[in-house]
Amino acid sequence: MDDRLSTRNSSIFCVETASHLLLDTMNFDQFLFHPNSKLESYATKADGGLDDDELKDLRDEQYQRLRGLQERLYAERKQSVLLVLQAMDAAGKDSTIARLTSRLNAQGCLIHSFKKPTKLEMEHDFLWRIHQKAPGQGEITLFNRSHYEDVLIVKVHGWADDQTINQRYTHINNFESLLADRGTKVVKLMLNISPEYQLQRFKSRLENHDKHWKFNPGDLDERKLWSDYMQAFELAMQACGPESSPWYVVPAENRRFRDYMVAKILADTLEEMNPDYPEPDFELADYPPDELV
Amino acid sequence: MDDRLSTRNSSIFCVETASHLLLDTMNFDQFLFHPNSKLESYATKADGGLDDDELKDLRDEQYQRLRGLQERLYAERKQSVLLVLQAMDAAGKDSTIARLTSRLNAQGCLIHSFKKPTKLEMEHDFLWRIHQKAPGQGEITLFNRSHYEDVLIVKVHGWADDQTINQRYTHINNFESLLADRGTKVVKLMLNISPEYQLQRFKSRLENHDKHWKFNPGDLDERKLWSDYMQAFELAMQACGPESSPWYVVPAENRRFRDYMVAKILADTLEEMNPDYPEPDFELADYPPDELV
Repeated sequence: MDDRLSTRNSSIFCVETASHLLLDTMNFDQFLFHPNSKLESYATKADGGLDDDELKDLRDEQYQRLRGLQERLYAERKQSVLLVLQAMDAAGKDSTIARLTSRLNAQGCLIHSFKKPTKLEMEHDFLWRIHQKAPGQGEITLFNRSHYEDVLIVKVHGWADDQTINQRYTHINNFESLLADRGTKVVKLMLNISPEYQLQRFKSRLENHDKHWKFNPGDLDERKLWSDYMQAFELAMQACGPESSPWYVVPAENRRFRDYMVAKILADTLEEMNPDYPEPDFELADYPPDELV
Repeated sequence: MDDRLSTRNSSIFCVETASHLLLDTMNFDQFLFHPNSKLESYATKADGGLDDDELKDLRDEQYQRLRGLQERLYAERKQSVLLVLQAMDAAGKDSTIARLTSRLNAQGCLIHSFKKPTKLEMEHDFLWRIHQKAPGQGEITLFNRSHYEDVLIVKVHGWADDQTINQRYTHINNFESLLADRGTKVVKLMLNISPEYQLQRFKSRLENHDKHWKFNPGDLDERKLWSDYMQAFELAMQACGPESSPWYVVPAENRRFRDYMVAKILADTLEEMNPDYPEPDFELADYPPDELV
């Protein structure tokens, strides 16, 4: 990124437009969760001062970048990325994942949805089932919900006491640092929506026959605990957001912006990891192409 | 498919073109592997009498169909698809999978590459590692290589005797029928290429720095056993190709045609399975959208 261009302006940030050319200089640092801040101070909807078509162009540029970066990561087989998605119900985790992964090579990109733990999973520590799904070298793994559920829904419902929750923050940090030491970059995204937006999404599920299967009456009960959830998110992001694997609070109500931001964060992460094609593990000179039979 | 339109003509098959409208009536039955036939009688390259742009349009139509069909399969959660890909090296398994899966929702679409078995895997029967990766209800699973390696490379190199290979055909049929009885449709594709095409692909890997990592000198040794492999394929497809889960021999040298054919076979399979959105598991009347809070 060219720092000369990344000066923020009074809108969300500075993007310079010049005859069909968008200089993609958006800086997402302002969306990093800052210690002691409140979620209500973060936007749930953003457009960066751009219209839908401009956001689409920016998004597509990032998708283009991702292709090449992912191939190098996959070929190199030394590093990996774990992208953690957390959010309130109906914030768009599924569609975010669908959109992003449609531009990644599926071989080398794994997705795991963590639902209510099974009996077998409950017989182990809370990181047991998570650890098994950590990315291998060269892979990008997306977690649709994650170990953070064990300090979110569990805390909100009081299924574990505060001491246990505090221990879990530590265990999570230790776990993520174990992954980091083996070359896994952990990127954590909280898709941020308002309660009003969620209500609209629920209504649309009930009004559309083909979406009934997505509606879960239990979600209405969780919705009543909105402020408890926000507090649990703040505490978790504060306790488990070291410099090395920060939390981004993604304004999720404008899907184009959301998809652009998620793609750019992943592409920037990969670029910083700087994966490269490996040297051949054979003597190239031994295999002159014109002499192959 | 409308049978009135599927009459074959003297080219590969009949596609009627009328003012930007391609009536997609291609019938792939001729590419089904027929008992006692030889692979050399199957095309390695096909275009259906269409140019690149026309094939692209047909392919994209299939991709469009797949989206809706997959969502219904996923929502229904009763049936599943297992797509098995086998081929000689460099036939394009990876790019076939990359292309197809970019149009599927990655949640609900799993890919497993079966490589040289690990020590742990070798300590079990040959279907042990395979069975663990069978699709769950609602899922589409792609196997990049599969249990068929155990009657292909293993047979060609004589790592198992003929009696064992014959037993394995039976075990494979039993296994696939176990899956079928639980609602899994098994579709098997052999990507068919010529030895000349493979040679070109190998050369291109050696000539391009960014592709060196894809070249494996050992592939040149396997290449020398081409006719043994063809014979092993023929025997396996004959022994393990019941009506219910047939083998398609896909002409793989024209990628547009290949991608179109694979997408259409999958879409036709899904359509025949006729998945549907499930009825809600709650009383819809209890949740009038306008009264949600």
